[in-house]
Amino acid sequence: MGKVIADQSMSLDGFSTGPNVAVGNGMGDGGEQLHEWMGWEDGGPAARAGVGDELTPFDLLKRSGAVVVGRRMFELGEEPWGEDPPFHMPVFVVTHRPKAPIVKEGGTTYTFVTGGIAAALARAKEAAGGKDVAVPGGADVIRQFAEAGLLDELRLHLVHVLLGDGTRLFGRIDPQRVTLERTGVIDAPGVTHFRFRVRANG
Amino acid sequence: MGKVIADQSMSLDGFSTGPNVAVGNGMGDGGEQLHEWMGWEDGGPAARAGVGDELTPFDLLKRSGAVVVGRRMFELGEEPWGEDPPFHMPVFVVTHRPKAPIVKEGGTTYTFVTGGIAAALARAKEAAGGKDVAVPGGADVIRQFAEAGLLDELRLHLVHVLLGDGTRLFGRIDPQRVTLERTGVIDAPGVTHFRFRVRANG
Repeated sequence: MGKVIADQSMSLDGFSTGPNVAVGNGMGDGGEQLHEWMGWEDGGPAARAGVGDELTPFDLLKRSGAVVVGRRMFELGEEPWGEDPPFHMPVFVVTHRPKAPIVKEGGTTYTFVTGGIAAALARAKEAAGGKDVAVPGGADVIRQFAEAGLLDELRLHLVHVLLGDGTRLFGRIDPQRVTLERTGVIDAPGVTHFRFRVRANG
Repeated sequence: MGKVIADQSMSLDGFSTGPNVAVGNGMGDGGEQLHEWMGWEDGGPAARAGVGDELTPFDLLKRSGAVVVGRRMFELGEEPWGEDPPFHMPVFVVTHRPKAPIVKEGGTTYTFVTGGIAAALARAKEAAGGKDVAVPGGADVIRQFAEAGLLDELRLHLVHVLLGDGTRLFGRIDPQRVTLERTGVIDAPGVTHFRFRVRANG
């Protein structure tokens, strides 16, 4: 049985984006610093940081059979992800607004699910066929998954920068309902990679 | 020449205390979880976590010759620190209200400095006689030191718990003014210990 795994980069002061997030500024002001460790600018994921590919969100996608994202993340990502999105698998978008599926190149499909996170996850698990389900965000969807006991693992990339403002990764999480147990840590220049087992309480 | 070193424990969601901080509840609701790694309950500092004494704030005090704290931290700490406080050296309290010095047992003196952080640090450096100056908090005093370029090092103990609310360690810091360079990291059960070189920009 596959696991449900969230993956997020976070600044030292707790932000998963900078301020002023909008279409065309999906990571917010300064928020791209959170992804620099992946080394996009220097020859591919993680090349600059000297870390293995297995640490990046791309590895998570490789072992996953389906993806669940929030509507806001989809709206911000649809254009930069382009006609051949990096997913190459079914993506289920949690939304309140019904919308016809969108079929992209390379195996990515966007399917809009209006029944909440549990309904989206059921669709994703069915599509994943025993592989993992990746939950790349946004922060609020990850919080909902964690509090509902639907999340098995959080991969947290703590980036050694301050952003000062933006979206707080743990902003509205109820600490009484979620326990994080650290199962792995790898330190690299400018970023510390954590893996946590996620438990919902009660 | 001694260094100026801040030391703080912080939850994964960025809090250095829980909510409802008051005299008699100095760490706020749930905030004592941030200090459990020091092992107070199980035979002395750091005993339970299996980490060396050199990681704890007590080591910082051992190598320091003076301490600077904020007025609020002093008010919260005065009673629990007791008649023989753990400092055993001069402590300078940054405050707006003039007050006569207080002499405790074991070498601890509390001196109230009204000229701001720079004035308090000047007094502390003089008293330290070339040893380090420790800045154990609170969060706002550490922020002021960092933004003013008066802080050399931050020792950050990232505790693997969520608090949900409280005092944000980096709550009001200006990310344009402060750069943190990670110079050391040690992972232990339930806590990851970071050391950062602190640089003020411009």
